[in-house]
Amino acid sequence: MESVLINGEWRAAAAIGRFRAIDPASGEEIGAEFPRSGAEDIEQAVVAATQAVDALMATPPERIAAFLDAYADGIEAAKDALVAVAHAETGLPASPRLADVELPRTSGQLRQAAQAVRSHAWTHPVIDTRARLRAHFAPLGKPVLVFGPNNFPFAFNAVAGSDFASAIAARNPVIAKAHPSHPGTSRLLAAIALDAIVQAGLPRAALQLLYEIDPMQGLTLAGDARIGAIGFTGSRAAGMALKASADAAGIPMYAEMSSVNPVFLLPGALRERGSEIADGFFQSCTMGGGQFCTNPGMVLVPAGAHGDAFVAQVAEKFAAAAPAVLLSAGVQRHLVASAQSLVDAGASVLAGTIGAAGVGARHVPVLLSVDARTFFAHAAALQREAFGPVSLLVRYDNIEDAVAIARTLEGNLTGSLWSAGDGGDDAAYARVAHALRPRVGRLIDDKWPTGVAVSPAMQHGGPYPSTSHPGFTSVGMPGAILRFAQLQSYDGVRDDRLPHALRNANPDRIQRCVDGRWTDASIDA
Amino acid sequence: MESVLINGEWRAAAAIGRFRAIDPASGEEIGAEFPRSGAEDIEQAVVAATQAVDALMATPPERIAAFLDAYADGIEAAKDALVAVAHAETGLPASPRLADVELPRTSGQLRQAAQAVRSHAWTHPVIDTRARLRAHFAPLGKPVLVFGPNNFPFAFNAVAGSDFASAIAARNPVIAKAHPSHPGTSRLLAAIALDAIVQAGLPRAALQLLYEIDPMQGLTLAGDARIGAIGFTGSRAAGMALKASADAAGIPMYAEMSSVNPVFLLPGALRERGSEIADGFFQSCTMGGGQFCTNPGMVLVPAGAHGDAFVAQVAEKFAAAAPAVLLSAGVQRHLVASAQSLVDAGASVLAGTIGAAGVGARHVPVLLSVDARTFFAHAAALQREAFGPVSLLVRYDNIEDAVAIARTLEGNLTGSLWSAGDGGDDAAYARVAHALRPRVGRLIDDKWPTGVAVSPAMQHGGPYPSTSHPGFTSVGMPGAILRFAQLQSYDGVRDDRLPHALRNANPDRIQRCVDGRWTDASIDA
Repeated sequence: MESVLINGEWRAAAAIGRFRAIDPASGEEIGAEFPRSGAEDIEQAVVAATQAVDALMATPPERIAAFLDAYADGIEAAKDALVAVAHAETGLPASPRLADVELPRTSGQLRQAAQAVRSHAWTHPVIDTRARLRAHFAPLGKPVLVFGPNNFPFAFNAVAGSDFASAIAARNPVIAKAHPSHPGTSRLLAAIALDAIVQAGLPRAALQLLYEIDPMQGLTLAGDARIGAIGFTGSRAAGMALKASADAAGIPMYAEMSSVNPVFLLPGALRERGSEIADGFFQSCTMGGGQFCTNPGMVLVPAGAHGDAFVAQVAEKFAAAAPAVLLSAGVQRHLVASAQSLVDAGASVLAGTIGAAGVGARHVPVLLSVDARTFFAHAAALQREAFGPVSLLVRYDNIEDAVAIARTLEGNLTGSLWSAGDGGDDAAYARVAHALRPRVGRLIDDKWPTGVAVSPAMQHGGPYPSTSHPGFTSVGMPGAILRFAQLQSYDGVRDDRLPHALRNANPDRIQRCVDGRWTDASIDA
Repeated sequence: MESVLINGEWRAAAAIGRFRAIDPASGEEIGAEFPRSGAEDIEQAVVAATQAVDALMATPPERIAAFLDAYADGIEAAKDALVAVAHAETGLPASPRLADVELPRTSGQLRQAAQAVRSHAWTHPVIDTRARLRAHFAPLGKPVLVFGPNNFPFAFNAVAGSDFASAIAARNPVIAKAHPSHPGTSRLLAAIALDAIVQAGLPRAALQLLYEIDPMQGLTLAGDARIGAIGFTGSRAAGMALKASADAAGIPMYAEMSSVNPVFLLPGALRERGSEIADGFFQSCTMGGGQFCTNPGMVLVPAGAHGDAFVAQVAEKFAAAAPAVLLSAGVQRHLVASAQSLVDAGASVLAGTIGAAGVGARHVPVLLSVDARTFFAHAAALQREAFGPVSLLVRYDNIEDAVAIARTLEGNLTGSLWSAGDGGDDAAYARVAHALRPRVGRLIDDKWPTGVAVSPAMQHGGPYPSTSHPGFTSVGMPGAILRFAQLQSYDGVRDDRLPHALRNANPDRIQRCVDGRWTDASIDA
């Protein structure tokens, strides 16, 4: 059986069970046996991470950045092996998805975190010389607990993704609860991470890895006062259960939970380029089995000939599509249940069939449709996320309806609008965008939402229930790092006792907000 | 009976009860009758605030700033009346406390919020030209609920304090649940606010005021999905109960709950200037009846002659002190209970007597002491906040003990160190400060914690349980405003559709982070 990583050592787990990954294409078990950890492993992981807090907090930023860069290099050097195991465990296409998109995104994200560490951008230094106050963001002083999701075995992996990179960038040790659907991928990534930890001279216990734990013990861990903060990406039910535990202990938990990512097609856009938009929609909805947080799960289509043509073209594509291999039998089961619940709430099936399709965890793309009246009558039920290659078209008669639909929406990660290039949709755009804006984290023009750039100006987050806090992003440096930081001020503290980045002298030309102006200059003492 | 403020009108409440303020100096009821509001008033307040969301969100920043400035002017113009009613309702000294410290702080805070609105500093604009992504902080799109505390009738009043100013600065309507111990003050402030709202042309329903509600209905309100965020300052019990309700509905709640504000006196400081420090401590602990969030409730005193002399001098001052008028009989009752619990946990009384002292809500300053061994044995119980003029001295034998005590501390708003000017304490300072730093929001050198400057570099916040989130401050602009904002990004959105502050042209010279550099320049299209 594989070992868990605790305190910088690969240890035999005090396993309370064992499991193997399942190839979702065949439904067969593959690879080595992995332990399911119990209270003993969890306790050791918490103790080891806690003991590493002081040393990691005291580690110079340059060394943290060197680790992040070395880890990125290591991931790229191990690309073939990583892609092979991730493909086998998740069924996601090796290329372009895993090899050419997700892996470079993951290493690039680690390097952006390194850059944010070197520039101190995430610490947001603010200096008030008259009041003798200086403030910045700093490590939590406690470990960060990360729950990884099933759908991004690299870019959101609990030992390599944005939560991991963010927590380490802020100099907090990590306790990673990887997703049990890709344990071999997590094991390989953690081994590369440990090499980089040793190479960069970080405390060995900067990272602990558990592959699977009992859900009840997960709840206990999420409420353990020794934990500083939690990053979570997964289902709403699991997220809210863990969050309740964390909340009761005063532990901030950043949960990304669900989103239908409404897309408003305005009439002029369909008139101008409906066929192109239809092609893009099909691609976006079915790519990677549709298993993206930002999958376009709800598309608002205007009444009329252009809307009808769009629907017909899309339905044809969906009907002709081969079954997608989903991440797991569990994903397949949830997809069937949620798609069926949309039908129960009044949607009709335009293309595809709800239900298992062949061996393994397969499901065909399914296109659903509902009219605006039915949507208004069952707005909550019809906003249920169907995680996979399923989308619900909502036909609207006029802009008043489109605006009213926008106003019924729950919080989402994204909201998109397609509008005419000739200005013909501008009035409609203004009205719909105004209603949509406070309900989504990222507002998108003329593009499908599935591409998530790792950028300082990204908001991969949004109002509840898409996430648990509308003020934070889980993607994009330095913003994502702030989730795992605390605001600390220094009041009248002597210059030589301040953290280097807050002193008068600023030899590294860090950008700081001094008396209301951003500058990289030193302060005259 | 006085009216409640809902939808910009002073309305007769659908009262479920009535109450009057109590002069804590006499214990007598004073002033007009005020309504206790029930579900009907609460619903009307939520509906009115929700209906004002769109109009307030669309209000130009200049008008928001004009309101904040006009409100500040109005408060200053009504200074005499405000001080008189606040003094009568709270027992806080009219001068210097209310007239010369808290009122100017309150108007100054509103003006700093206005300045943050004009400069757009709180929106933190970030632009990535290559990725075509632009992000900033924006209104929540829902009302903010504010629960005001008893101890700052102006500066933290739910209709005038930092939470109010922050919520309005971010263009969110406010539902204020004022503190029932000073309803007349809140009524007068809200009238001034409404004048300023009308004068500046804000939606009249930008502010609703309820004086008192049933606690169970408060819990229901805190979990109402129409609420965007909550600001709370008060007790840990009330804060955690409200937070549980808010958490279950995914509503961010910023609660400031309790803090003992540890102060470490290092040996050299006492040797150099022990008598001066003793005087300052007595002032800080007893000023305003000791009813500050940042009251020095725990002071670490070294063993030896200088420590003994400090204790003797302080004990003499405490023993000679007159009873303080506390804010209310409830505060007095809690103070007696919490001081007694410290004695039960092993503290001894060095000066003063625990218990009511004369007519009204009076209590003498009380000095408690405990040795380090007893502290370690009952560290949790001995960190209970005694809100009022009570402080616990912890005698420590050596720096190892001081460091160990720092490591047992719960999260606090502040942590202070007094050290020698001659460098003699520098080694001890480094060790204690290192242990203390992650446990406090504001680290203070050679000063008592009770002064809280309204500064961009302030952190009036700290790790749990002092507050519910270590990344936010409730005092200081623009930081405090971020609690009531959401992060919004724009992806590929055409320039003329962007908010003005995110467009290429930057005629107002807003400071923006463009491609990693802060600048007030425009962007070449």
